[in-house]
Amino acid sequence: MITWKGAEISAKLKEKVEQDMQKLGRVPKLVIVRVGEKPDDVSYERGAVKKLHSFGLETETRVFAEDVENDVFQREFRAVNEDPSVDGILVLRPLPPQIDEKAVERAIDPMKDLDGISPVNIARIFSGDKSGFAPCTAEAVVCMLKMNGVNLSGKRVAVVGRSMVVGRPLSMLLLHENATVTICHSKTVDLPAVCQEAEILVACVGRARMIGRDYVRQDAAVIDVGINVDEDGRLCGDVNFEEIEGRAAYATPVPGGVGGVTTAVLADHLVRAALFRAQKNV
Amino acid sequence: MITWKGAEISAKLKEKVEQDMQKLGRVPKLVIVRVGEKPDDVSYERGAVKKLHSFGLETETRVFAEDVENDVFQREFRAVNEDPSVDGILVLRPLPPQIDEKAVERAIDPMKDLDGISPVNIARIFSGDKSGFAPCTAEAVVCMLKMNGVNLSGKRVAVVGRSMVVGRPLSMLLLHENATVTICHSKTVDLPAVCQEAEILVACVGRARMIGRDYVRQDAAVIDVGINVDEDGRLCGDVNFEEIEGRAAYATPVPGGVGGVTTAVLADHLVRAALFRAQKNV
Repeated sequence: MITWKGAEISAKLKEKVEQDMQKLGRVPKLVIVRVGEKPDDVSYERGAVKKLHSFGLETETRVFAEDVENDVFQREFRAVNEDPSVDGILVLRPLPPQIDEKAVERAIDPMKDLDGISPVNIARIFSGDKSGFAPCTAEAVVCMLKMNGVNLSGKRVAVVGRSMVVGRPLSMLLLHENATVTICHSKTVDLPAVCQEAEILVACVGRARMIGRDYVRQDAAVIDVGINVDEDGRLCGDVNFEEIEGRAAYATPVPGGVGGVTTAVLADHLVRAALFRAQKNV
Repeated sequence: MITWKGAEISAKLKEKVEQDMQKLGRVPKLVIVRVGEKPDDVSYERGAVKKLHSFGLETETRVFAEDVENDVFQREFRAVNEDPSVDGILVLRPLPPQIDEKAVERAIDPMKDLDGISPVNIARIFSGDKSGFAPCTAEAVVCMLKMNGVNLSGKRVAVVGRSMVVGRPLSMLLLHENATVTICHSKTVDLPAVCQEAEILVACVGRARMIGRDYVRQDAAVIDVGINVDEDGRLCGDVNFEEIEGRAAYATPVPGGVGGVTTAVLADHLVRAALFRAQKNV
């Protein structure tokens, strides 16, 4: 079994980002919007900031108190959104219950919406309009496959999980690459058998080591999007990596797999957003 | 093989529409926007008008010359869109090349957009937000199944075709019903074998009688969305209806199947649109 490491794909994306930055002729800026101090958010933010800085990009974090009032938050968010010095925005979600998250999705400038939360970008991803931003994690899976030389056209792919962050947009991205996609979820009957039909299996369920050997077709490629903490407090994916050895031909580890590609895609989106704006003379 | 007729489902939808109209207390109005005299458009319009009138609804058709200038068309469209006496709009598409169709999609009031062409409605369908309007044909397929007593949860469904009018939105509607959906298309390898995995097979390809016996699993339900004209000038579906006899347990005919349900769904959407507006006091 060959391990597909995130670092290699991330390095390739770095080259692309650097080329695009030369075209742009300036350093674009990302603003991360975070409410409260949730460990998941802080950890993702740390990874993103580190990656973007290593790519030569600028970041700024706007932190709000956990109990910030909705109208205060929306006003401040609008200011960030309209600030011409800001090229891209990443909102760490879910936001706390007092914040109208739907209003944020509607308000965010689609051209600055690097993680594809705006209805405008969602509609573009669904329609196959390449000018839209997909959620970074979904696009990271496609990068992981294509940059490892996989031609997706005609391939049978099973996507396990149907969230709006990964499963559903990913299914659409794979469809636009001409894969034959089956979207699986908690109500799927005989999930292992359905997964075994797939040449490429993508796990984005959020359950530690759920995908074992009996889910994997011989010589399949297995992409693990899960980031879980097991009973012993160790980071692990949705896939039982040891168990699929000898069964899968290719697999991505956790940590060290899709996660690092996700922040590299975020960097790529930031430069793309800045280039769009430069072309439109905004 | 049991034939699922559109007329029965249409009659059930009529009852629902009549109940909703009583709540509304007035007769809502649909405006059909047509450019030119394409036979497909004229024929669909005739069916829709007939169906809506038989449901007690009001329709009006705005016809523009085939060569209408884009700015004239957009201005007139805006007037229809903003007219408070109009509850719902159906734009017959594709529009001729000189018309900016994307601008129409962006401009149409999502609350009057009965056939789900606005990015707002597309994003809602993708997200599973029930307040959005799906394309009528996609929803007609779900009605055909559910109103014939099919519980979609956990069912294997193959959707053959991935258009924005049927295949893609339908896949999302089925997913929201907890079906396990495989989206097939022209690049799918060994399409008959993939289709044979499905308990429910939906054909929305637009190729006369393409789906034969070898595509159908024993005792499957087959829904035919195709409306084609064969070499002899006869109307036919994407499914070879005679050939699947004895193989499929249920099938919809063409004509007499999904088509009539589509216009009934249009009627249902019109009344729903009017109720939304009444609740919002627009």
